[in-house]
Amino acid sequence: MSRSEFSIIESYFADLSPQRRDTLLAIGDDCALLMPTAGQAVAISMDTLVSGVHFFGDVSPEKLGHKALAVNLSDLAAMGATPAWFTLALTLPDLDESWLTGFAGGLSALANQHQIQLVGGDTTQGPLSITIQVHGLVEPGKAFRRDAAKPGDWIFVSGTLGDAGVALQTKLGNFKSPVLSETDQQFLNARLESPTPRNQLAEKLRGQILSAIDISDGLLADLQHLLDASSVGAEINISALPLSQALQKLPENIAYQQALTAGDDYELCFTAPAETAPQLAEAFSDEITCIGVINDSGKLTLNGLDRELGLSINKAGYDHFS
Amino acid sequence: MSRSEFSIIESYFADLSPQRRDTLLAIGDDCALLMPTAGQAVAISMDTLVSGVHFFGDVSPEKLGHKALAVNLSDLAAMGATPAWFTLALTLPDLDESWLTGFAGGLSALANQHQIQLVGGDTTQGPLSITIQVHGLVEPGKAFRRDAAKPGDWIFVSGTLGDAGVALQTKLGNFKSPVLSETDQQFLNARLESPTPRNQLAEKLRGQILSAIDISDGLLADLQHLLDASSVGAEINISALPLSQALQKLPENIAYQQALTAGDDYELCFTAPAETAPQLAEAFSDEITCIGVINDSGKLTLNGLDRELGLSINKAGYDHFS
Repeated sequence: MSRSEFSIIESYFADLSPQRRDTLLAIGDDCALLMPTAGQAVAISMDTLVSGVHFFGDVSPEKLGHKALAVNLSDLAAMGATPAWFTLALTLPDLDESWLTGFAGGLSALANQHQIQLVGGDTTQGPLSITIQVHGLVEPGKAFRRDAAKPGDWIFVSGTLGDAGVALQTKLGNFKSPVLSETDQQFLNARLESPTPRNQLAEKLRGQILSAIDISDGLLADLQHLLDASSVGAEINISALPLSQALQKLPENIAYQQALTAGDDYELCFTAPAETAPQLAEAFSDEITCIGVINDSGKLTLNGLDRELGLSINKAGYDHFS
Repeated sequence: MSRSEFSIIESYFADLSPQRRDTLLAIGDDCALLMPTAGQAVAISMDTLVSGVHFFGDVSPEKLGHKALAVNLSDLAAMGATPAWFTLALTLPDLDESWLTGFAGGLSALANQHQIQLVGGDTTQGPLSITIQVHGLVEPGKAFRRDAAKPGDWIFVSGTLGDAGVALQTKLGNFKSPVLSETDQQFLNARLESPTPRNQLAEKLRGQILSAIDISDGLLADLQHLLDASSVGAEINISALPLSQALQKLPENIAYQQALTAGDDYELCFTAPAETAPQLAEAFSDEITCIGVINDSGKLTLNGLDRELGLSINKAGYDHFS
């Protein structure tokens, strides 16, 4: 590809996202110039997706565009930060206009939904790879931090767990269930390929909670990061884990194994002080579930269905490339 | 590689850079939290280097670590922004400890020199590729912009031009000169592989100039971007182009061809009003050279040695992958 062909590629992204008034300069100079609101911290996170490692080479470009931004938005949600700007480094083997249209479309739809503006990036030739950096805004004292959980806090998760894991294992040919309908499979695939980052929930929780993480590597692995950072332990009630209708049809050991250890769900895991947790549980009963309690044991203990199910739990969670 | 091996990789980068007081949270949470000085804009730029496209696969990892950060620092210099933070997305085929030590060392030396802190990133497995995003700070009214050049402005460049181009053509086997000594070749290779971003000069120029760009694609190509953005033209005096001692030994047509069109020098090209330009030229006589004048012709005209040399100038400059 020549440089002029790269300019063509860049034209796919020039107008895909909303314009923000706090963007002084977007694409077209040596740098973008951003003007954060006074008193707000800039929260940033960067994630790379590599073909064949983080996604199947034949995934639809629309879904890939969605997912590449979604996994980054999820990091802003886990920090309680409001999405503001993003940059995109796209490495492509060749100029495939239909692929680019699809990818830009998936990216654009999610960017507009979250009012996050594309302000820069780079386009290069090479093996397919996507790096996105997101920038959000949050008052420093209101940011959700991994190191802010306290003994007695209730532990919550959003949505349902294990759906993306079952979809992935099915795609890899490791798992096949006759009890899942076509509709179930579509639901599970959507959970894997088009995750919904929980930014709206995070906005509503801001000011009410102080500690959170998103579930990208699996509940146990990610919760353990939060426990380590906060120097606390936790007790989880396995039977309380929220399962989708699809996962409720599966054998319990498979469903809970995936809910505990599978990554890619991009749900939030957060803690709330015992004094306010019951009100939160009620106010957000459609969106969140209490699954356990923080304690000072220094360990993560699983109760509930553990013994009967004979789960095979690797404490490090699901060992995949981050 | 397993996830735990990736943690090893991350340990190479944990303490490589200076700590800044305006970093509220660095590596270790879902996001880093940055606190820009009130009233300052955040200038950001992102560049990807792909093995086999932007660098030779056998380049020394120290030099690659240096260059990956240098090309991004150069974008901050071109904006007049003071370096503050950077993120690193590193895709590696495997865990090569000696390579990682070298790469981190080259990155670290330059990061410390410019007081820029590594605050996040991602490490993935795949074909070797490096994406860095830099973040700098600048008062919005003092940022150097491509669209701020005015007719009558003098045009300056820093350093010397064409050195990296001659080194690249020599490495590609397209060019061989008996007149260049071993010392000359080492100088030229260093210009290609370990460019010096002009951030110190940019700091000194801030408040005195308003329009700049860095020379990454070649003087003509990059100056044209500035002229287009400012809706102006320019007249360049080829005989005024600053050439290194090494390039002065080469046939004039080769030296000036490279100085005009070769990329990768990472020098600054900037303009200054005619009223203050002579004082600038004198104050920074060791670092900058006036090469021409902005006019309202809408065209870029080359004067001086053009006709005698029979240069082959492609107005789009050197067509390489950006």
